[in-house]
Amino acid sequence: MDYYYEHLLGTFVFDNKFKLVNKGKKKKDSQPIPQKKISLILENFHDKKYFPEFYQKNIELTKKAIKTAVSEDQLIIQAIANTTELDRVINILVKRLREWYSLHDPELDQKISSHEQYVESILSKQKKEKVSMGADLDQLHLAEINRLAKEIKALFNLRKEHELYLEKLMSGYCPNILELAGVTTGARLIELAKSLKRLALLPSSTVQLLGAEKALFRHIKTGSRSPKYGVIFSHQLIQKTKREFRGKAARMLADKLSLCARLDFFKGEFKAKAYKKELEEKLK
Amino acid sequence: MDYYYEHLLGTFVFDNKFKLVNKGKKKKDSQPIPQKKISLILENFHDKKYFPEFYQKNIELTKKAIKTAVSEDQLIIQAIANTTELDRVINILVKRLREWYSLHDPELDQKISSHEQYVESILSKQKKEKVSMGADLDQLHLAEINRLAKEIKALFNLRKEHELYLEKLMSGYCPNILELAGVTTGARLIELAKSLKRLALLPSSTVQLLGAEKALFRHIKTGSRSPKYGVIFSHQLIQKTKREFRGKAARMLADKLSLCARLDFFKGEFKAKAYKKELEEKLK
Repeated sequence: MDYYYEHLLGTFVFDNKFKLVNKGKKKKDSQPIPQKKISLILENFHDKKYFPEFYQKNIELTKKAIKTAVSEDQLIIQAIANTTELDRVINILVKRLREWYSLHDPELDQKISSHEQYVESILSKQKKEKVSMGADLDQLHLAEINRLAKEIKALFNLRKEHELYLEKLMSGYCPNILELAGVTTGARLIELAKSLKRLALLPSSTVQLLGAEKALFRHIKTGSRSPKYGVIFSHQLIQKTKREFRGKAARMLADKLSLCARLDFFKGEFKAKAYKKELEEKLK
Repeated sequence: MDYYYEHLLGTFVFDNKFKLVNKGKKKKDSQPIPQKKISLILENFHDKKYFPEFYQKNIELTKKAIKTAVSEDQLIIQAIANTTELDRVINILVKRLREWYSLHDPELDQKISSHEQYVESILSKQKKEKVSMGADLDQLHLAEINRLAKEIKALFNLRKEHELYLEKLMSGYCPNILELAGVTTGARLIELAKSLKRLALLPSSTVQLLGAEKALFRHIKTGSRSPKYGVIFSHQLIQKTKREFRGKAARMLADKLSLCARLDFFKGEFKAKAYKKELEEKLK
């Protein structure tokens, strides 16, 4: 009986002409099963004694389907989502670190605006400036602050690690996107589109606005100005361009990104470098 | 001149009877300066040539005042605030970890509800169960997830470290509060009151509701039920008590906590153990 179940549940699909076609991996792959045999099989499904077995088989096949459904898309999405999460977390903790350490050395907070450098400088130099308003804290207290700084540094490192990982993953899965959009922007586009497949199927005007949904719907609802770019705003090609031409640059970049997504999804050639050069020349 | 500035700016205060009294640490401490001498000093302040010097001195004294204003209160407040921050951060990251690792082993997420144990089990056992719906991920991907798990574990450790530090700090600064309220609740009470001094001056009914401000103002505004406890709710004496007696228990605990704060602030004796026993017997 096993054979029938598997076929009926897992590997039969209706083809375009609504004819039952056998898609299993066993012999006579593309041969349609004769109608008579099918009705014979189907009759068995009325037999109650097969119901528990039928149920078991169904679950097994579903589990198998779930197992094989995990793709690079999901791994990329989780990794880039965690990068965003890490940014948030680092921000929360650095704010606290700045407040805490300012009891000891309030001048440093003003002097260094970069979070990463601030953490670095707490960890490297242990002496504060002599003419400081800060209290002279005991080693007991400073050690506690240092522990926090160390932890934050580790989080910064994890974030960098994630970027390397994403680069490795994407260089195999979507080399064109990786080349043209860069690691973070590329991964974020896939995250927003939910998968590379969907990204490839989106019109380039949608790609241009991915990540600007809030502004877009505000535009539709209240008639405010329409957004010109979503996450691709942070792309260096747009950052370099003068303000008045940024909308145009975003449109051109989105065009090429859309092409890249299609090349990657349908396993086409590697054209991103040429696209990049083209854009750079046009936007000069 | 220096002497006059210092006295006039830093160490003169009006006493209750609005008489100028010298509070400096030099000799003749409690002797009031004769009125005549004071008017002589004050005349110098009209002289413009002293203005820059005067300004400098003012800043110096202010800096000194700021420097000495850092007390145990602020260190406790920063440490307990960071503990809260860490809870938030760990929560954010564990949620992501659960989603990410579930691609590989979705069954584990359901099986272990404690965040800390979940992280532990990812780090310790490397093999998932055989009959799993999860995808078989390469070591490349699993290593990345493991890195995140390691980081979260370090954050858990930092949180524990903070508690030890707080315990050390509070055992010297407010032993009574520490004994009766415990580390976290005690530190949170000081955080909410802003300082041990203010906590000592608050009526015990306010101590009872510290941390329940939102519910209290909703009660005042809309007439909803008044809150019965604030942060002291997590205290084991209240947790152990039956629901209908919890309000009463909270009132009794707040009474004793208020006494403890006063004992600690005015450097009184150590009575918290006796109070604890008394409460435990009454609430049995």
